[in-house]
Amino acid sequence: MIKKIVVAPDSFKGTMSSEEICGVVEKSVKKYYNDAQVIKIPVADGGEGTVDAYLAGNGGKKVFVNVTGPMGDKVEAYYGILEDGKTAVIEMAQASGLPLVKGARNPLAATTFGTGELIIDAVKKGCEKIILGIGGSATVDGGIGAAAALGAVFTDENGEKVSFDGAGMGKVCHIDGSGINEAVKKAEIVVACDVKNPLLGKNGATYVFGPQKGADEKMLKVLESNMTTFSGKITEFCGKNMNDDEGMGAAGGICLALRAFLDVKMASGIDIVLDTANFEEKVQGADMVITGEGKIDGQSKQGKVPYGVATRAKKYGVPVIAVVGDVGEGYSALYEDGITAIFSTNKAAIPFEKARLTCKEDLEFLTESLFAFLNINN
Amino acid sequence: MIKKIVVAPDSFKGTMSSEEICGVVEKSVKKYYNDAQVIKIPVADGGEGTVDAYLAGNGGKKVFVNVTGPMGDKVEAYYGILEDGKTAVIEMAQASGLPLVKGARNPLAATTFGTGELIIDAVKKGCEKIILGIGGSATVDGGIGAAAALGAVFTDENGEKVSFDGAGMGKVCHIDGSGINEAVKKAEIVVACDVKNPLLGKNGATYVFGPQKGADEKMLKVLESNMTTFSGKITEFCGKNMNDDEGMGAAGGICLALRAFLDVKMASGIDIVLDTANFEEKVQGADMVITGEGKIDGQSKQGKVPYGVATRAKKYGVPVIAVVGDVGEGYSALYEDGITAIFSTNKAAIPFEKARLTCKEDLEFLTESLFAFLNINN
Repeated sequence: MIKKIVVAPDSFKGTMSSEEICGVVEKSVKKYYNDAQVIKIPVADGGEGTVDAYLAGNGGKKVFVNVTGPMGDKVEAYYGILEDGKTAVIEMAQASGLPLVKGARNPLAATTFGTGELIIDAVKKGCEKIILGIGGSATVDGGIGAAAALGAVFTDENGEKVSFDGAGMGKVCHIDGSGINEAVKKAEIVVACDVKNPLLGKNGATYVFGPQKGADEKMLKVLESNMTTFSGKITEFCGKNMNDDEGMGAAGGICLALRAFLDVKMASGIDIVLDTANFEEKVQGADMVITGEGKIDGQSKQGKVPYGVATRAKKYGVPVIAVVGDVGEGYSALYEDGITAIFSTNKAAIPFEKARLTCKEDLEFLTESLFAFLNINN
Repeated sequence: MIKKIVVAPDSFKGTMSSEEICGVVEKSVKKYYNDAQVIKIPVADGGEGTVDAYLAGNGGKKVFVNVTGPMGDKVEAYYGILEDGKTAVIEMAQASGLPLVKGARNPLAATTFGTGELIIDAVKKGCEKIILGIGGSATVDGGIGAAAALGAVFTDENGEKVSFDGAGMGKVCHIDGSGINEAVKKAEIVVACDVKNPLLGKNGATYVFGPQKGADEKMLKVLESNMTTFSGKITEFCGKNMNDDEGMGAAGGICLALRAFLDVKMASGIDIVLDTANFEEKVQGADMVITGEGKIDGQSKQGKVPYGVATRAKKYGVPVIAVVGDVGEGYSALYEDGITAIFSTNKAAIPFEKARLTCKEDLEFLTESLFAFLNINN
């Protein structure tokens, strides 16, 4: 008899959110095991939907604030304060995201200032922990905007304040961190980061992510040069060279300036989600965990959701079932990490353009079938 | 804990035989439930592979005989005698099948004589029951060849014997059944027939199945005319008009002449297989039945394998799981017939041309996953 199931899937990119998947699984479980406890932990990757996922998994409320958008105009953004009242979940995309850019994308002029304002708002409301999701940013500003919003001052060779954007980075001569907000300094800041790119070079913030933010060949050269200058000044200021730290190239290098002043941790999205939701406490005594992702394969070992969930559940001897869109090459390597069985939502031999149209009903068909099947063994 | 499982799937047309599927399921069950009894009942549809499937499910041996092929040349054919020594399983395709036709297909000249010879051989070896699978025939001879082999005599207006083929049918004036083999008359003859076509007309033996046997427009007209003549003579002879009986149009109308002399039962392939294998006895006390087919959908209710298996298992309260290639429209109607859950072997959103290449490993992936999943509930 099934008494307790933990559901912690990734979203199926482009088709279903993690909350939707949790809902479908819960419905199927309840159909056959009405008394079972279903603990839903929707997983977010730091991009759009991260706040919603955390609120769905942990309870809490949305806070709406007017902040500076990526191009300097005011935008209404929201972040989440979880049930504990002490933890804020902030999506960088809400304040500094690509969809907020009206007209031409221009990372030389785009700023993370609004993201800093969200952090300030959260600590003013009593938050002591900030979870920052950094997906979908429009910026390549090395975090100069966000740091400025937190109270840092960046000046040029004439002692004038520089602009808080990709252009301003290149003019920084002097850095003053004395005005950084005290509450922010005390706060625990965790950045959800699932890429490992360094700050500079062909794998860095500018050359890998710059083009999708609107930079052409010429602008890329300017941005890379400015980022190199800025990084040098940051190293002078704080005594650390962080250029090659894993993930520094994410989100236009936002962690560069933040980490000059603050103790910012970077961790994978799944680890932060599971820690925040007290996964390891909740998983104990569960009959199984249901996880999933759009496609599972050998790559999934590299910090993806099913792997993260499975390795933790394995510690407590709880079997993990993965429900996925596609099953690709190398999936079987996951069996040793705690995945007991994998099921695909595909129910006909048709291409993805067609399959995606029925993905939610296909998932429902699969999970209902699974629990009907399991139920015959009671 | 799983103690007993009955496996009774159809083949997946064009990809896997029923025996292969039974083998894959058994292996998966044994991996997780080593002590479980797995009863395999491979299902055949009367076409190629029928003898093998019956022998695999019931035990027995193959008997090889030289008989008359569809075009009059000698061919080596085989049939099966089941473990009981009394039941013969004969594939019409072995003696009168399309693959045996060398050169141009010509149903006017093709005969079922060899099929009759197989029946004679079986009764001579002591068989009292003949299961005749009629898929894949090259003939449109109204059974005149088979009946001739059993001892019937068909003569024309001059009292001369007619040829035992599509052309000969049209010349029959007189029928003499006095020479029909006595042992055959006493035998129980069951024809496995899954089509409902009548003998004549646009839905009949000639117009529906004639073209694939090589008849062009002109030949179709001649065959239909000859079949109409022959059917009239048969009715005169035995007093029955069988033209509109369900399934008379199958296999070039072979049942027409056979039923003029013999008490031939026609039943669906799945019913004969299940009866022969004593399915209803074996299913009692089973934890579940695994069935399947290449594609399950609303059509499956029309006598297809999962439906036949499910309706019988339901009588004994044994849940039925269907493992299938594709799941199509209307599948949910089968839930009321005893199907508890349906699982597709598809594990990626790719077209059939690609999926078919991995169908066996996909089935193995599915069934291993299912029993691993079930096993967590022990």
